[in-house]
Amino acid sequence: MNTRIYNARILTMEEGRSIFEGELWIEGDTVTYAGPAKDASEKKWDEEIDAEKNLIMPGFKNAHTHSAMTFLRSHADDMKLDEWLNNRVFPAEAKLTDDDVYWHTKLAVMEYLTSGTTAIFDMYMHRAAGARAVEEAGFRNVFCESINNFGGTLEEVEADYHTYNQDPHRLVSFQLGFHAEYTTSRELMEGLAALAEKYKAPVYGHCSETKKEVEDCRNRTGMTPVAYMDSLGLFNYGGGLFHGVHMDDSDFDIIKKRGLYVVTNPASNLKLASGIAPVKRYLDLDIPVAIGTDGAASNNCLDMFREMFLVTGLQKAVCDDPEAVPAMEVLKMATVNGAHAMGLPECDTLAEGKKADLIMIDLMQPNMQPIQNIERNVVFSGSKQNVKMTMVGGKVLYRDGEFFLDRSGEEIYAKANESARRILG
Amino acid sequence: MNTRIYNARILTMEEGRSIFEGELWIEGDTVTYAGPAKDASEKKWDEEIDAEKNLIMPGFKNAHTHSAMTFLRSHADDMKLDEWLNNRVFPAEAKLTDDDVYWHTKLAVMEYLTSGTTAIFDMYMHRAAGARAVEEAGFRNVFCESINNFGGTLEEVEADYHTYNQDPHRLVSFQLGFHAEYTTSRELMEGLAALAEKYKAPVYGHCSETKKEVEDCRNRTGMTPVAYMDSLGLFNYGGGLFHGVHMDDSDFDIIKKRGLYVVTNPASNLKLASGIAPVKRYLDLDIPVAIGTDGAASNNCLDMFREMFLVTGLQKAVCDDPEAVPAMEVLKMATVNGAHAMGLPECDTLAEGKKADLIMIDLMQPNMQPIQNIERNVVFSGSKQNVKMTMVGGKVLYRDGEFFLDRSGEEIYAKANESARRILG
Repeated sequence: MNTRIYNARILTMEEGRSIFEGELWIEGDTVTYAGPAKDASEKKWDEEIDAEKNLIMPGFKNAHTHSAMTFLRSHADDMKLDEWLNNRVFPAEAKLTDDDVYWHTKLAVMEYLTSGTTAIFDMYMHRAAGARAVEEAGFRNVFCESINNFGGTLEEVEADYHTYNQDPHRLVSFQLGFHAEYTTSRELMEGLAALAEKYKAPVYGHCSETKKEVEDCRNRTGMTPVAYMDSLGLFNYGGGLFHGVHMDDSDFDIIKKRGLYVVTNPASNLKLASGIAPVKRYLDLDIPVAIGTDGAASNNCLDMFREMFLVTGLQKAVCDDPEAVPAMEVLKMATVNGAHAMGLPECDTLAEGKKADLIMIDLMQPNMQPIQNIERNVVFSGSKQNVKMTMVGGKVLYRDGEFFLDRSGEEIYAKANESARRILG
Repeated sequence: MNTRIYNARILTMEEGRSIFEGELWIEGDTVTYAGPAKDASEKKWDEEIDAEKNLIMPGFKNAHTHSAMTFLRSHADDMKLDEWLNNRVFPAEAKLTDDDVYWHTKLAVMEYLTSGTTAIFDMYMHRAAGARAVEEAGFRNVFCESINNFGGTLEEVEADYHTYNQDPHRLVSFQLGFHAEYTTSRELMEGLAALAEKYKAPVYGHCSETKKEVEDCRNRTGMTPVAYMDSLGLFNYGGGLFHGVHMDDSDFDIIKKRGLYVVTNPASNLKLASGIAPVKRYLDLDIPVAIGTDGAASNNCLDMFREMFLVTGLQKAVCDDPEAVPAMEVLKMATVNGAHAMGLPECDTLAEGKKADLIMIDLMQPNMQPIQNIERNVVFSGSKQNVKMTMVGGKVLYRDGEFFLDRSGEEIYAKANESARRILG
């Protein structure tokens, strides 16, 4: 499948290259040209798309999510975290089957596509079912291991590491990780650190999401979660922290020294009253930040536009600095940094040779007009309404409100409702 | 024009009436029935709409905006407030003509419709041009006077009060107001208070948006803005405060005693680093809160879904209380309270006899699935993508992405761009 997109405004997100008018060639799953209009008559195209001066840019990378938690959307809101987690989330998750995860992952993929997302960093159980749901749809997923005291063995982790990483052309890959310090024994974390050492691999986990988590960890170990995890050797080959809301000065030093990514999840942190992450401070320290939605149980939607506005808006307010985290920085977090955080450097920009994971942003909508600064339009006033097309690996999966997937929306909605009713009653 | 909407889920927003399945009759601009399926064969319908089990609810009321400021969208972002206002906003506004305001108000109306908004409380200049833009489109607007030291006389205010309020069937009406304490002389405010007394009318103004504003007012008058305004008799017949971010204990007492509305504008307050309004405290004190977007220069979009999530999300985080400001409370603010705040009690709910200002929310989108709690779906995961139809006064103005207005989108975009280029260079 070779596609030429012409008459476009293009933002490749390459460092120092601003928006230009021109065209983009896609051969197979790869970008082969991104530049001004060019004679393409020698090439054979399966499709030529007139972008009508709309914006083509890399798809967003949702760098922390729990896809199948769509089954819990609007099931438990406006509640205290403990009650939410222990009385609602955990008992419901215990009833999940492979089939439930399959259909609710399908539902999440639809939602990612409407939000212009082309790759996710997904931490969830029943991995084989989730992988099937994603691969059949043609979507891109990096699994993040979530081993903890209630599920998973180190043998399974090592097996999955091979299963999902042996074929570099697969849409699904895998990174080492654990759920969180407060759910994972020292023994398991040491075992994971040994795997990280064996494969020279980065490690990821929830970290310092709530004040209570940090206090409890200090009481248990005498250290902050960051310091404790690092002391076990988990970050000797890098990795990343999900949430990263409550940090000590010494934590920043460790994060910087180990080259860790921080994935911020502002909507979830607001809704669960966890706090507001020190994103500006991370940036001031040159710590790379990526953006995630977290799962639909805590967000409740999987919308990168909402997260992008929150990342900059919240920092401006809490730092009392309207210059904090400018728009281009946010776009970089949502694309380039996300791709690097989850181990997809081939998906970061639209330079030649990169994967054709891209979106078309509809500028002929009232919220994008007048056209004065397109990057700022996307960050400050963009919304899912503006996602005209989402392409993953050179294939159009969503366009003008229509999905091009292996299953119909109607079937996915029906199965998702049926499954949610069975589990939640 | 008589319309029957059947096979719907209906949320009328009447106190104590939850979502039911049924139908809604609209005769002229008025709701004449909202209840379970009913024999309608005796009636003549111009149109019968199958809602396909989607949600019908009152349109959102954007209770504080500056419509024509769409011309400044993405022109000046990530900037300090002083520089933004004095070097960017004010010099640009000085160049505005009636025509500019006409076209940029048209553009704003399109955006309101995509966001499910059916009425606005609009504070801006060149009022006749704005009124023409809105009325030709069939949209509903309450003008809020913004007299200040740089524009307007009390004679003009009184004339406008009559012009826009004499015909109760007009889509445009008018409320007394002033820009803000820091831009308006004591003399003007006293004159406005005299008009309020004469017409027994409520008065509205920007109030306590920034810390600096409150400090400066204290230095000038020895009082907070709320106390100072009240001491001049401005609120003897009620009214409302836009923003209301920085309040003293004594301010809450005055607001409560005078029965004032507070209109919160969370996205603007974040982006300009003004702070986070004490919305939970207002609610605890039974002070009615409505929601506005503020203008596109400071937001940058006119999207009530984003504001709704922010209203609840921010309060949960800053109050460290995930139970703060639950979803139904937010829906009430965005509909019933907004209507009452701006003097449109006939537009608050979908009870029989109320105006047919309503929206259809598309539930067959991934962000609304599975269907577990629809009210919470709307507040926590809803977006403009879900606005399937917007109806004002019984007329469909927006449906399935298409606008039914007096001017085409293409013409409005072209004129808006031309005007912005002329003014901003």
